[in-house]
Amino acid sequence: MSSERLIYLPLGGAGEIGMNCYVYGYGPEGAERLILVDMGVTFPDMDGSPGVDLIMPDITWLEERKNQLEAVFITHAHEDHVGAVGHLYEKLGAPIYARAFTANIARGKLAEYGHSDKVVRVVSAFPEVVKAGPFEVSFLPISHSIPESSALVIDSPDGRVVHTGDFKLDETPIVGEAFDPVLWGKVAEKGIKALICDSTNVFSPIAGRSEASIADEVTNLVAEAGQMVVATTFASNVARVKTLAEAGQRAGRSICLMGRAMRRMIQASVETGVLTDFPPVISPEDARGMPRENVMLLVTGSQGERRAASAQLANGKYNGITLKEGDLFLFSSKTIPGNERGVIRIMNQFSEMGVDVVDDMGGRYHVSGHANRPDLVEMHKLTRPQIVVPMHGEHRHLREHAKLAESNGFQSIVAPNGVMVNLSGNEPLVAGYVETGRLYLDGSVLIGALDGIVRDRIRMALNGHVLVTVPIDEDGELLGEPWCELKGLPELGKSNAPLVDVLEEDLDQFLGRAKGSTLKDDDKLETELKKIVRKSSLDEIGKKPEVTVVVSRLA
Amino acid sequence: MSSERLIYLPLGGAGEIGMNCYVYGYGPEGAERLILVDMGVTFPDMDGSPGVDLIMPDITWLEERKNQLEAVFITHAHEDHVGAVGHLYEKLGAPIYARAFTANIARGKLAEYGHSDKVVRVVSAFPEVVKAGPFEVSFLPISHSIPESSALVIDSPDGRVVHTGDFKLDETPIVGEAFDPVLWGKVAEKGIKALICDSTNVFSPIAGRSEASIADEVTNLVAEAGQMVVATTFASNVARVKTLAEAGQRAGRSICLMGRAMRRMIQASVETGVLTDFPPVISPEDARGMPRENVMLLVTGSQGERRAASAQLANGKYNGITLKEGDLFLFSSKTIPGNERGVIRIMNQFSEMGVDVVDDMGGRYHVSGHANRPDLVEMHKLTRPQIVVPMHGEHRHLREHAKLAESNGFQSIVAPNGVMVNLSGNEPLVAGYVETGRLYLDGSVLIGALDGIVRDRIRMALNGHVLVTVPIDEDGELLGEPWCELKGLPELGKSNAPLVDVLEEDLDQFLGRAKGSTLKDDDKLETELKKIVRKSSLDEIGKKPEVTVVVSRLA
Repeated sequence: MSSERLIYLPLGGAGEIGMNCYVYGYGPEGAERLILVDMGVTFPDMDGSPGVDLIMPDITWLEERKNQLEAVFITHAHEDHVGAVGHLYEKLGAPIYARAFTANIARGKLAEYGHSDKVVRVVSAFPEVVKAGPFEVSFLPISHSIPESSALVIDSPDGRVVHTGDFKLDETPIVGEAFDPVLWGKVAEKGIKALICDSTNVFSPIAGRSEASIADEVTNLVAEAGQMVVATTFASNVARVKTLAEAGQRAGRSICLMGRAMRRMIQASVETGVLTDFPPVISPEDARGMPRENVMLLVTGSQGERRAASAQLANGKYNGITLKEGDLFLFSSKTIPGNERGVIRIMNQFSEMGVDVVDDMGGRYHVSGHANRPDLVEMHKLTRPQIVVPMHGEHRHLREHAKLAESNGFQSIVAPNGVMVNLSGNEPLVAGYVETGRLYLDGSVLIGALDGIVRDRIRMALNGHVLVTVPIDEDGELLGEPWCELKGLPELGKSNAPLVDVLEEDLDQFLGRAKGSTLKDDDKLETELKKIVRKSSLDEIGKKPEVTVVVSRLA
Repeated sequence: MSSERLIYLPLGGAGEIGMNCYVYGYGPEGAERLILVDMGVTFPDMDGSPGVDLIMPDITWLEERKNQLEAVFITHAHEDHVGAVGHLYEKLGAPIYARAFTANIARGKLAEYGHSDKVVRVVSAFPEVVKAGPFEVSFLPISHSIPESSALVIDSPDGRVVHTGDFKLDETPIVGEAFDPVLWGKVAEKGIKALICDSTNVFSPIAGRSEASIADEVTNLVAEAGQMVVATTFASNVARVKTLAEAGQRAGRSICLMGRAMRRMIQASVETGVLTDFPPVISPEDARGMPRENVMLLVTGSQGERRAASAQLANGKYNGITLKEGDLFLFSSKTIPGNERGVIRIMNQFSEMGVDVVDDMGGRYHVSGHANRPDLVEMHKLTRPQIVVPMHGEHRHLREHAKLAESNGFQSIVAPNGVMVNLSGNEPLVAGYVETGRLYLDGSVLIGALDGIVRDRIRMALNGHVLVTVPIDEDGELLGEPWCELKGLPELGKSNAPLVDVLEEDLDQFLGRAKGSTLKDDDKLETELKKIVRKSSLDEIGKKPEVTVVVSRLA
């Protein structure tokens, strides 16, 4: 057996849906030449990451080995695959390879950080090959919901790996190349060492439907509407945007795109020539001037995002347009778990305005962009890999997908983020564990998820905050009374006196009794004062607040 | 026409699912004699109410008219109908009427606030009547998912109102009385003025299934399991707890109840004699000593609640029991929108432990306790009211339910919280608008949702917090340098210097230049210092934090 090895290491996307980031390596242990597949983001929420703008993988492990890194490959232009290129490029510095449309989107993100277009190199579809150290990599077209989605065919001295990226088996995908089983069969002909495979929909028991299957239903819905029609979906679901626009056009309506991301994505699609027959669009200004029954708006914000077009329409107005009684609003989308509250809030706001809200109706107006369970089985059987490695899924998806593969006679392994797998032998082996994590884009700064910064914010949100200032002179004598400022706490407590008065009184009593040695020791003083505030607050209001103590020692 | 009128006024539950609280009145305008139906709570979330313990309706309107209030009626013992009795009883002081099981639960809640059992008066089912001012009220049995669920038949001089409470049409409900269309037909015989009707499932297009329909499926699942089986559902879904326990028993397992709420609910059911044939249960200690394949645990925490038994088992151990590879965990429940993140977190923790997690499987292991769309139609047709008033639903549910009723020839009206409806005439009329809102139980204190307290906590969570202290002497001279304490903010900003240093430097510069008049004016000083901190932070870290300024004026 060779001393070289072929490794797979997910840094993001294996243990969550989103934030895709996978390393492959080949070479002697510890000195492998590496490539990276995808640099995606995921989105924050109030529960775990309040105030955070974006979440991306912590790539410290790779950064420390950037001299081993040959190249980065981006499978497609969804945010959870390309969203972190701008924020993380500088840490790696390796060239980025993508197909034209994906490259267009990636370049836009890199430009925001002042990086040149040259950082991204455009590659044509399979069989064009990029040499990256010991690897030869090509972009194999696969149907998804955005132009030029690709799997990667990664040839190494230890065999061929196919990394599916996001995919579904769709022979009429509206945009992007149709799934081509003959081409895939050809790729599999010489044998596939490992299939690294999307797990998103492993719990969906029925075979997936084509994007084309909803066109008639949407057209009927729009045709029957008597007033304005508005439809929302992910801006990056270019296939759906086209399905909706064509349905509107067939129903005799003019199409207006609203929301920056929606316009940008369609513009990039047209610029790169991947979207040649999109219906003509009108501006919001023109839409305002037309009879309502002749207009269809396609808008951002299908997940209830607070600043997107849908939310702004629900709040009353966007681009000068206000919805009215009898208008129709279609969510041509599925709500991602965790976003329900935001989506429902918008639905109820529309309901109060008399707008009829229609959701996906159990699949009538929406199909998924990912392969369902029977489609995964089909993919396994078509490619017949030696090993199936589930990726892009929460732990439960990876585990279920591995069980599914094993039940059909394939070797498999559950490898969540940080688990390095050696693919060289006859069976997949865990080769080690790497520390992984999440970086938060917080305003303009990247912070670590475990830095304690966001934890402190969560604690303030849960417990409120008390600030204590104690002025002390150079001799360790009190220069006045302690002072409290409360934020996020009730004014009155059990004793029916202002909480701030109760706390100041209790602190004052303590300080009056405190020894000189305590007053001279900042740490001790802080500890004691915090303890008093927490205890008194618990008595008064049944909560222990966060406490900050400032001892002002005046010289 | 009489100058007296019959009014309906929702204070909670109409505009949300949960927090039920409805007023009925009869008498001259402004001097109606009133009754209250249900005093429910709803649950906080991190998005809108971080750190809050419970949410209940703001009943200020009713409190100001408590001398007009005759009585409170509780339809059934679910938290969203009875949960606020302890917290709000003192504001009203009126007697509470309920059937025996509901009374048992209500008394427990009142006892926590030191109120006597006598506050709650036990009433038998229809035709027993409670006289409450101009009203005669009786408890009409209806199937739901907890013992003794009842609709209320409310007779007034202007006719009969039927308030459904929560219900489904179930002739084999496992616990509680079966739906009895003959009895309901009898109640409707003399004519019903208004049906105030549960709207929860108006968007569910297929007729609801009986609780009894899942028994065999659950039994098969448990019987096929090779190791320990754990099942969770709402503790207050007594019907489901029984269904699960009987399935376990049929599969030859001993049943162990875990979680305080689960044990308490079953205990109350047994005490009041409404649950006579519940399988024998064993203690957690005994369960620990038995072979895993002979045990079935029924646990709290189906909604992912952080402190419940499910979450604790997912974290490693509860009552000395640890789950293992090959165990089975069944969510016999539907995740309430907004709780997905918590539930999914637990599912993935179990997945990491090798535990097989099974969810409701699209209805195989769970049925709803509420009437679906065709069941609502059946209820309308059976009772043939003059008016259908949708209640218990978000705005979209109320609106859809009203449309449904109208499409079947009934008058209807959408009356969200605060809309007073006059039911006396031939058609329902809006009689006025009342200010309503939410109270938060925050620790041990009731605060108003709009008091700004929770808003401040949310802002600290989103933006972080900077505290500025400036010591100034009696002459308005600086006594030292300004001091900043940061919480929830990154340490380093754009200039790569500690943010705290940048802020202190900027504040110091400002204070050095500031005029004496500024230094003497606390408000002006505070405004200016806040502005500087926000601006400098935006430059450095791309965020504007919350700022608290303390000017210590030392005498």
